[in-house]
Amino acid sequence: MTTEALYTDTALRAWKLVITQLDQMFSSMNDEELRREVAPGRNRVFYLMGHLTAVHDRLLPMLSLGERLHPELDDDFLTNADRVTADRVAPEAVRLAWSEVNARLTAAMAALPPEEWLKKHGAVSDEDFAKDPLRNRLAVLQTRTTHAGFHAGQIRLAVTKG
Amino acid sequence: MTTEALYTDTALRAWKLVITQLDQMFSSMNDEELRREVAPGRNRVFYLMGHLTAVHDRLLPMLSLGERLHPELDDDFLTNADRVTADRVAPEAVRLAWSEVNARLTAAMAALPPEEWLKKHGAVSDEDFAKDPLRNRLAVLQTRTTHAGFHAGQIRLAVTKG
Repeated sequence: MTTEALYTDTALRAWKLVITQLDQMFSSMNDEELRREVAPGRNRVFYLMGHLTAVHDRLLPMLSLGERLHPELDDDFLTNADRVTADRVAPEAVRLAWSEVNARLTAAMAALPPEEWLKKHGAVSDEDFAKDPLRNRLAVLQTRTTHAGFHAGQIRLAVTKG
Repeated sequence: MTTEALYTDTALRAWKLVITQLDQMFSSMNDEELRREVAPGRNRVFYLMGHLTAVHDRLLPMLSLGERLHPELDDDFLTNADRVTADRVAPEAVRLAWSEVNARLTAAMAALPPEEWLKKHGAVSDEDFAKDPLRNRLAVLQTRTTHAGFHAGQIRLAVTKG
């Protein structure tokens, strides 16, 4: 393994850890439990599962890793807050999309050579990237890892205490 | 900036982002609000503030960045769950410790040369590190960033809705 790969593989391992943690929580809950709010009046686990799926799906084009798989989730889980629209996507479909998006994304990220991680991501202009080279793809991976951890902490509150 | 520094500075920026987010939430709450539970029957914000301070304080020796500043927090905020012991540390003291520990830690991490981040951390043996070079200091930074995000997501639930 090259030295550069050590940096990016370490970041990728942190990503995989939080995805595995979320996988385990979603698998432990049936569809009824997915409807629980993480705290009174706050988002349902179901919404957060769709939200994380949509955010991760958008990483595919943002990191130049391919086309989105599930743009149809944006309306219910990204543009609108929870319960603004009726539930139009079944829990089973969201579960499948969650697994499909993360499998595709994680495999594509694992195949990305280290130096590619330092290139600019799709949401920054050439001009802004020239001023701030830390607005790279690796930064996107890291902030999305924290974002996934942020919601994992909330979802944890809705998992039945052991 | 060297290429190697781009990898580690990107990781450090993700850490600083979550610390700033936590700073802002703690500052927005008075001592009474710190006593709120993040969800019914779950940890109080006060406990999570002490918990994150203790976990971050332990990173100083674990990353070979110096001695701990506040080992006295472990008993109330790490070894024991919330409300197992009476509150023995005042909110103001925990706020100060939180700021002090993160300022010291972040400054020391920012001064660490990139190649140092790939060395083994203090909680892994030479033998285990030889088998798995991803058990390095950078991995500790990344998992602690996710951990801080995990609790930030919970604390967010106790912040008054805007």
